[in-house]
Amino acid sequence: MDAFEGKVLAAIQRYQMFSAGNRVLVAVSGGVDSMVLLAVLMKIPLRLRLAVFHLNHRLRPESEAEAELVASFASAHSLPCYIERLADDLHTCKGKKSLQVAAREVRYRLMDATADRLGMEKIALGHHADDQVETVLMRFLTGAGPEGLAGIPPVRGRYVRPLLEVSREEIMAYARQANLSWAEDASNQKPVYLRNRLRHGLLPYLEEEYQPGLRGRLRETALICREWIEVLEDLVGEVLQRWGVLQPDGKLAPNREGGYLTPVAAWLELPPAVQRVLFRRLFFSLAPADAYLEFIHSEAFLRLVKGPTGKEINLPGGLLAVKEETVLWLGLATAVPVWGSKVPEDWGPLPLMVPGTTVLPANQGVVETKWLGRGDLPPTWEQVSPFEFYLDADRFTFPLYLRPRRPGDRFTPLGLGGSKKVKELFIAAKIPRLQRAAYPLLVDGEGRVLGVLGLRPAAQSKITVESRRVLYLNYRRLS
Amino acid sequence: MDAFEGKVLAAIQRYQMFSAGNRVLVAVSGGVDSMVLLAVLMKIPLRLRLAVFHLNHRLRPESEAEAELVASFASAHSLPCYIERLADDLHTCKGKKSLQVAAREVRYRLMDATADRLGMEKIALGHHADDQVETVLMRFLTGAGPEGLAGIPPVRGRYVRPLLEVSREEIMAYARQANLSWAEDASNQKPVYLRNRLRHGLLPYLEEEYQPGLRGRLRETALICREWIEVLEDLVGEVLQRWGVLQPDGKLAPNREGGYLTPVAAWLELPPAVQRVLFRRLFFSLAPADAYLEFIHSEAFLRLVKGPTGKEINLPGGLLAVKEETVLWLGLATAVPVWGSKVPEDWGPLPLMVPGTTVLPANQGVVETKWLGRGDLPPTWEQVSPFEFYLDADRFTFPLYLRPRRPGDRFTPLGLGGSKKVKELFIAAKIPRLQRAAYPLLVDGEGRVLGVLGLRPAAQSKITVESRRVLYLNYRRLS
Repeated sequence: MDAFEGKVLAAIQRYQMFSAGNRVLVAVSGGVDSMVLLAVLMKIPLRLRLAVFHLNHRLRPESEAEAELVASFASAHSLPCYIERLADDLHTCKGKKSLQVAAREVRYRLMDATADRLGMEKIALGHHADDQVETVLMRFLTGAGPEGLAGIPPVRGRYVRPLLEVSREEIMAYARQANLSWAEDASNQKPVYLRNRLRHGLLPYLEEEYQPGLRGRLRETALICREWIEVLEDLVGEVLQRWGVLQPDGKLAPNREGGYLTPVAAWLELPPAVQRVLFRRLFFSLAPADAYLEFIHSEAFLRLVKGPTGKEINLPGGLLAVKEETVLWLGLATAVPVWGSKVPEDWGPLPLMVPGTTVLPANQGVVETKWLGRGDLPPTWEQVSPFEFYLDADRFTFPLYLRPRRPGDRFTPLGLGGSKKVKELFIAAKIPRLQRAAYPLLVDGEGRVLGVLGLRPAAQSKITVESRRVLYLNYRRLS
Repeated sequence: MDAFEGKVLAAIQRYQMFSAGNRVLVAVSGGVDSMVLLAVLMKIPLRLRLAVFHLNHRLRPESEAEAELVASFASAHSLPCYIERLADDLHTCKGKKSLQVAAREVRYRLMDATADRLGMEKIALGHHADDQVETVLMRFLTGAGPEGLAGIPPVRGRYVRPLLEVSREEIMAYARQANLSWAEDASNQKPVYLRNRLRHGLLPYLEEEYQPGLRGRLRETALICREWIEVLEDLVGEVLQRWGVLQPDGKLAPNREGGYLTPVAAWLELPPAVQRVLFRRLFFSLAPADAYLEFIHSEAFLRLVKGPTGKEINLPGGLLAVKEETVLWLGLATAVPVWGSKVPEDWGPLPLMVPGTTVLPANQGVVETKWLGRGDLPPTWEQVSPFEFYLDADRFTFPLYLRPRRPGDRFTPLGLGGSKKVKELFIAAKIPRLQRAAYPLLVDGEGRVLGVLGLRPAAQSKITVESRRVLYLNYRRLS
């Protein structure tokens, strides 16, 4: 084993990338980095069982030749080789950037699927120390905290990057000395890409003019930031566990309507740094692959958390965060829970079936009615829930209707004496603003409010010894 | 109050820089930043009681005029003004850099002393958003983790920086509009200083070529890093409290011989990020003002902590860290505890006074001897500590000597049967390597080892019914 191989092995051991005998899918583009990765993994005394994965991007004229090169190298060394082709429909994407993002997403999905199918324990990627340096510099320029500055992780799940501590120069030297063939990727030279401009322009300039040894310094920055992330991730993990959204596999599972319903009080106890990291984890577990978060977004979220009730913010990727009295909801705007702001608030008035079953819109629930005799009355009124109304039919006018509350609605609630605003009752009962749409009003033929289902009936409903006809309503919510 | 003043007030409130009525010493160089700082603090409705501090650096020809300008502005506004002059001896320092470092140190010391003398609660400094951006960029280039990238803190103890969220440009505009006079510092233009090269060269270049809005992004980075620091500082604070070295005023107090003696086991339980921050805090609480720490130093320290016993590393500023079995010592190399590696290990042989008192070198302790009659023997040998020897004077040869252990020393310890290496006994007794020098050997006139004081006497010392003359030794350690 030569010095280069030893250095790679040291990184593999430091980050515990492999166990001896692991089945490893090696992602090989045909470029010098991944060819060297494959060659070194074949040499290293860990009895790895290697297979080659190549994605034919079909983005450049050379693509076919690259696939050829990879296949023949694998075959020459008796390694199984799996070549996938990028589907045509991806090529119809508009714009370079979205194409690159889409290609990246597909590449990882196909690698994952191949590894699953073949029962491979690890997937090895060819990123090296200069990729790391460029990433850190790029993240710094676009404004990143420690999460971004940590750069490329040596290990993320089953993905490992054994070359992350050797430089492009060392890789080139090894490739020449080992007589490897590789394909030059002409797009690496085009200065149009920010990364290429950093590589060929800014980095050499900074090393020359401002900081000799800058590359080493940036790798140290990445390492220190990774260490800090470890600490923050632990704290965030504890919170996620308490909230019951962290699964045994380390992934996050939405706990409500495809989003996260979390306690405001718990958020407020967390330091801002933990809030920001937590927000990002929840966000990225829901957001589409190309969604991004900027500082202004986490800033807006932190303000939302400690701000007034009833506010909401729109986030990239179609996400929405809503602050209620006691809970905070984060999810796709299309999936806000049934009590959420997306329930139409302008349905009805919906005629109530008497007797019978009336289905409320937006899957909110059903209201059942029936006539009762005096013997069917409950033995004590204390057992009656606010979802059950007993109405004296002589004290209102048919037909009855259901409708959502409207600003200014008021009535005389049973037992509270005097006319009250519906809004005041909601506040007194501590019902979050967004849930209020799920408490329909019962109104009679003259437009008088006979109560709010789930909250309180009106004084008119009071059953006395003189009541002759009693109408019973039962509101069953589905959400 | 105009928009600029409102922005400064917002920052003051966000970071709780002042309470109403605070007595504030404002550091005014005479440059535009500090003149604006003073002018704004005079306007802001917090009823601050201001006084002006100026240090006449006497480094440039304009120094006297600047002091004049500050004094006359203060006098025109009836503000008390305290002007200090940099002492001549500072000017004899070699080299620009050390002069700047020394001047900075003196400036802070004089400001502190002035504030103490006048009972000022706060000291206000004129750093602004562009200073912040330059600091973050400079730290990034020289390789900093989140601690460095956090830049200049808005509040550090009683030091506050109310202008930290307004730019140089906004300050200039305000100064002109308010018709302020100020002194131009010609040294701000000299491209020789790294900071000036960043200000006039690199920052505009990066904004133009790579990232419009870079300044804003770097300020966000600083803010996020400060938030992360808050979390890490909390964790580090808990550890320091457990170790009993954190004082109520938040400062650190050495707990042993001017250094820190800390438990290795506790270090090993901490995540690397916490170890690194902790190390830096301990280091900077001891190191001279111009000492620096690079990545390699914390890296070496982390390796020391988890590495083998008996290693030590030299650190900048004349500090030394030593790893023992159970403890880790960090302090000035000149102050290593008495059992440390700096105790001369080549003293002696030192003749033992019989009867009498013998003082060991390096303030280790004293050995007292006296002759005992049979009635003076202890009632049971179990009560005898290893620091007390009872020797049968017929079983050794006078004179007796004390000396430190030497490689290869061996003897037959009382009750253990057979000859043992002294080193083996130390290991069995779990005595850290560095403490072993504080266990002197007792040897007789023929060079035979009669025991290790504090550890175990030799078999020769056994007192039997036949013993006629008993010599008693008592070793009292002073450290």
